[in-house]
Amino acid sequence: MKTFMGRNFLLSNEKAKELFHEFAEDMPIIDYHCHLDPKEIYEDKRFSDIAEVWLGGDHYKWRLMRAAGVPERYITGDAPGREKFRMYAETLEKAIGNPLYHWSHLELKRYFGYEGVLNGETAETVWQLAEEKLQDERFSARNLIRRSDVDVICTTDDPADTLEYHKLLREDRMVEFKVYPTFRPDKAVNIENAGYPEYIEKLAAAAKEKIHSFADLVKALIKRMDYFKSLGCRVSDHGLSYVPFERASAEEVEAVFEKAMEGTALTEKEIRLYKTALLLELGKAYAERGFVMQIHYNVQRNVDRKRFLSIGPDAGFDCMDSENRGRELAQFMNALAEEDALPKTILYSLNPNDDALLDTIAGSFQDESAVSKVQHGSAWWFNDHKEGMKKQLTSLANIGLLGGFVGMLTDSRSFLSYARHEYFRRILCDFIGGLVENGEYPDDPRALEKIVEGICYYNAKKYFGF
Amino acid sequence: MKTFMGRNFLLSNEKAKELFHEFAEDMPIIDYHCHLDPKEIYEDKRFSDIAEVWLGGDHYKWRLMRAAGVPERYITGDAPGREKFRMYAETLEKAIGNPLYHWSHLELKRYFGYEGVLNGETAETVWQLAEEKLQDERFSARNLIRRSDVDVICTTDDPADTLEYHKLLREDRMVEFKVYPTFRPDKAVNIENAGYPEYIEKLAAAAKEKIHSFADLVKALIKRMDYFKSLGCRVSDHGLSYVPFERASAEEVEAVFEKAMEGTALTEKEIRLYKTALLLELGKAYAERGFVMQIHYNVQRNVDRKRFLSIGPDAGFDCMDSENRGRELAQFMNALAEEDALPKTILYSLNPNDDALLDTIAGSFQDESAVSKVQHGSAWWFNDHKEGMKKQLTSLANIGLLGGFVGMLTDSRSFLSYARHEYFRRILCDFIGGLVENGEYPDDPRALEKIVEGICYYNAKKYFGF
Amino acid sequence: MKTFMGRNFLLSNEKAKELFHEFAEDMPIIDYHCHLDPKEIYEDKRFSDIAEVWLGGDHYKWRLMRAAGVPERYITGDAPGREKFRMYAETLEKAIGNPLYHWSHLELKRYFGYEGVLNGETAETVWQLAEEKLQDERFSARNLIRRSDVDVICTTDDPADTLEYHKLLREDRMVEFKVYPTFRPDKAVNIENAGYPEYIEKLAAAAKEKIHSFADLVKALIKRMDYFKSLGCRVSDHGLSYVPFERASAEEVEAVFEKAMEGTALTEKEIRLYKTALLLELGKAYAERGFVMQIHYNVQRNVDRKRFLSIGPDAGFDCMDSENRGRELAQFMNALAEEDALPKTILYSLNPNDDALLDTIAGSFQDESAVSKVQHGSAWWFNDHKEGMKKQLTSLANIGLLGGFVGMLTDSRSFLSYARHEYFRRILCDFIGGLVENGEYPDDPRALEKIVEGICYYNAKKYFGF
Repeated sequence: MKTFMGRNFLLSNEKAKELFHEFAEDMPIIDYHCHLDPKEIYEDKRFSDIAEVWLGGDHYKWRLMRAAGVPERYITGDAPGREKFRMYAETLEKAIGNPLYHWSHLELKRYFGYEGVLNGETAETVWQLAEEKLQDERFSARNLIRRSDVDVICTTDDPADTLEYHKLLREDRMVEFKVYPTFRPDKAVNIENAGYPEYIEKLAAAAKEKIHSFADLVKALIKRMDYFKSLGCRVSDHGLSYVPFERASAEEVEAVFEKAMEGTALTEKEIRLYKTALLLELGKAYAERGFVMQIHYNVQRNVDRKRFLSIGPDAGFDCMDSENRGRELAQFMNALAEEDALPKTILYSLNPNDDALLDTIAGSFQDESAVSKVQHGSAWWFNDHKEGMKKQLTSLANIGLLGGFVGMLTDSRSFLSYARHEYFRRILCDFIGGLVENGEYPDDPRALEKIVEGICYYNAKKYFGF
Repeated sequence: MKTFMGRNFLLSNEKAKELFHEFAEDMPIIDYHCHLDPKEIYEDKRFSDIAEVWLGGDHYKWRLMRAAGVPERYITGDAPGREKFRMYAETLEKAIGNPLYHWSHLELKRYFGYEGVLNGETAETVWQLAEEKLQDERFSARNLIRRSDVDVICTTDDPADTLEYHKLLREDRMVEFKVYPTFRPDKAVNIENAGYPEYIEKLAAAAKEKIHSFADLVKALIKRMDYFKSLGCRVSDHGLSYVPFERASAEEVEAVFEKAMEGTALTEKEIRLYKTALLLELGKAYAERGFVMQIHYNVQRNVDRKRFLSIGPDAGFDCMDSENRGRELAQFMNALAEEDALPKTILYSLNPNDDALLDTIAGSFQDESAVSKVQHGSAWWFNDHKEGMKKQLTSLANIGLLGGFVGMLTDSRSFLSYARHEYFRRILCDFIGGLVENGEYPDDPRALEKIVEGICYYNAKKYFGF
Repeated sequence: MKTFMGRNFLLSNEKAKELFHEFAEDMPIIDYHCHLDPKEIYEDKRFSDIAEVWLGGDHYKWRLMRAAGVPERYITGDAPGREKFRMYAETLEKAIGNPLYHWSHLELKRYFGYEGVLNGETAETVWQLAEEKLQDERFSARNLIRRSDVDVICTTDDPADTLEYHKLLREDRMVEFKVYPTFRPDKAVNIENAGYPEYIEKLAAAAKEKIHSFADLVKALIKRMDYFKSLGCRVSDHGLSYVPFERASAEEVEAVFEKAMEGTALTEKEIRLYKTALLLELGKAYAERGFVMQIHYNVQRNVDRKRFLSIGPDAGFDCMDSENRGRELAQFMNALAEEDALPKTILYSLNPNDDALLDTIAGSFQDESAVSKVQHGSAWWFNDHKEGMKKQLTSLANIGLLGGFVGMLTDSRSFLSYARHEYFRRILCDFIGGLVENGEYPDDPRALEKIVEGICYYNAKKYFGF
């Protein structure tokens, strides 16, 4: 029996251990997609207790607690942090096989130096240990980033955002790591949402442009894109239910825009053609600027409407969608490729059934402009666990080119989540080591070093141009 | 090499062996979903030969024999039982990797004490051994249940059923195990089926109510539901092609009901809105009564029409569907949740691609009214094999809370199928033991005992309220 | 650590090694589906260099190179073969886990006797070795077939083809292996394609019939089918986006045919009903002649339109589809079964999510006319790798009857691809050996020999009637 989460956690063969400890473990981190708050980085935020750090905004943990029958009061309600933490510790004991079990313990080990097990019995001990440790300046936002050896952080930002803290961070000579914004124009894309006209006004103000037409909107967005670029942005991101592809004339698109601005409800078709048009315009602009386009899709958001209305979005009421529509995604990519305007693209589906589909779509649009120009992104959200990662790596290796993969990201709101890079690297090394041990790839240290270090760090550095 | 189906069958690591033999093996059985005939239990049925027991109504075996090219005469035809049995034995030899191989041999070992291999050469020996054994009163229906240490059996029953044998079983002081009915109103839901108006009349008679409207129908069904409850029923069940969600006014639903009662063909939309309305009414009634709602979906029934017409339903001509429509399922759950009327629910899809989808839908609707209120049901029908079970357990562990799972059921028509609980428990212990051996969960006997015994027995006991 | 691709490559347990070396390794090959050119076989083609052999038409390799960022000039362009080969060698190094890594090295080992690793550093050595070897007559088309111990080859042919080289091969007494045509009427099915009317004229000429109606078309196709049969054909093949099922009257179908012949664009519905009608007619004709019907579906072809137009079809711009429509496939099979006209059928989907669906559809239509009359075909194209094969075998074993499987085919344009049969056999033996080692199947050499040799050779021989 292996030690619980010991030195060789998840490393099931000798080659895997070698690859991890010699090559992967000490590579710096490029976290090219996360939801950290640049303000918290700039202000070097400190945390009052472990409930704030762990349970303040982590809907993964909230869902798990709800599945354990924990009353909402201890989840998003007004129970004291100490009690919430105990409830989480009790839940965790039943969560055998869940990535939260591993992430939680990895964070306790790596940041708090706690090597034991967290459960109902140890909750109080861990609470006190954490309380003590969090006083230490090693637990400030910036120091957590430094301790994790993070080279680059890409936050997620709205085009209307002033990026005030990004500017301040750039000017702060004490910040030796890089913090860049990501251009995520979901509010401009989601024309069906209630606040759309107000958002467009806000965007107009941010861009210092009038927005009276779809053409104006595109112009304003591109102006903001260039502003983002001036602050180091190299990446965009889209969160979609699915990738639509429905062509229309410029007039039709303008008519839909006008209708939406008047507050009139749109038909499904109108929504589709607007989104298609806007995504194509944005895609072209990304290509021109060398931006990477990230597409996250196959999500149903806020399916429990009542609790969404009372508790809010991103509170644990989202699920997968199964309307993958691989046809429209391929058509969308093609429409850009036909104009030589397909940017570097990373595709993420929330539905793990899409792994092979995405690998074959990616494989149809590769070209000499970049190594693995179209990427099948790392296992996302509900798939971000050992099996999901292994599945994504296996599919990519089978159908695509594993050696060109840009690897892991945290997608997180927490400064402790860098432990997920370690988690990924262990799984990666286990996968690659296994192939070598089984005689499926030669034991060539030079080639293996290039592949492992590439996926951990260098591929992303080159692909994004950091 | 391990002994063929020996003491540690399917237990590939030391921890798995320990967990199975110390905790899982001797837990009693709660078989919360099966198709046993309560009359056979009441009358303590005896079996004439092993062909009757094994081949009388088991379409799993029929399909396998057809795939081996066995003539229909030896499957559902008039060939003597002894010859049918020999044909099955010859087929089995080619069925390497099929769960029938394991189930058949487990049943021979556990009930008949036969430790050898069944194939064409041994068929005659096994036939004779079984003939001799079946004389013994240990092979009566009730004694098979007792020998299997079954605590609770939930049969599957139509709302129009008198439940006569359920009443008799309740009154029989010799029956120390519990036999409860399950409320399965498929005939009331499937408005598109030929005999619908006649069925409604039958239901009216059973409920001693007039049914002249949809509202009457709901009332009659609820009356029967309460009758079922008085005989210990705690569970309902629905077999659906897919879960529809199409809202309509009360008037529209009444109009569809009227049209169907007149024998007029319905449109797809009419069928959808009727089913949505009825399922919502039933869901609310289940919630009020504390019933668990089971939903089985993604089935195409009787796809070989000609043989369905000549041989009948449940004869091996069904297949998976792939129209999972996760959106409508989520909307249906939400519609109940919005009225605080979502009952405890178990979701089963025949399509294994839905595993992760179901886990994320379940996770969106959990609340404090029960531990794992919405369950991702055990691997069903075509998925009821080692790989399917491992896949369901892995997905549930990754995305949900494995420790809250209510575990296995037989879904069977045979008194020998309790061996499937052993099969499941071995796979469960192998999965959990593997996580401990790999250092992914601590070797904490107290926590592991709770998880294993919970999934084998206690979780179901508490969840269903037996 | 195992030797890189050594004697026991992919054989992870003792039983697997025994099964492979004793039973599987030396069985002859029946390659019942490939894209070899009968002219090249007849003319006993010789190859100038390894770039011609490997990179001349292999879009698998082209895609991999594109994913590595290799300029198109070195892929389908005018760069010298030697440089193309070096680029491929450099790409391969990053392709850890890709089947091309294994196929390429297997071919180097088995045909060229090169036991080393191919990468950028060894490219030149391998090039020179290959140049020398290819001079040898052992590398002629016929001798490569002989060295691979191939018994039967089924090429892929258009109904309008004269089969001139098939005739010559039949008459050539020096050809001791069998080469049969396969009837693949895609051009007659794809009524929506630009050249359809011209193709119909070409077909009419080949059949020496007038084609003025759909009925004439069917008659002409059947005449060609009989001609194919006279040259040993036993198999048909269809490449479809999906299997449609939309019934129409004979008049409606005739009207669609007429419209297409006039060059008028068809609606989606018209295309669907035409294809349904034609596929049903062909299916019936196959059944009458004892032909096997192969259906390959769930493909999106030429999704990168611009490069398709400049480089051509089958150049690496295809991807999976996810519109599997299992319902229509089942309805199509049923329509034939209802008329007792379902031929032996092999179903292949490009989307690996369909594995279980196909196994359950196949299982619904088995009958006594053949062992495993409806087959779930071997892992196809993007799934033709270790994981895909294991997945197909596992699904078939779990849901169907593994012992009835007709096994592997190359689907290839190259005379070196027979190494894929070895690859498959190793994976098959590893799978079966694993079941025996784990005590899931008895260690019965007689039964195992039958299963392994059956899947490698005898099942296909019997199923196709060679």
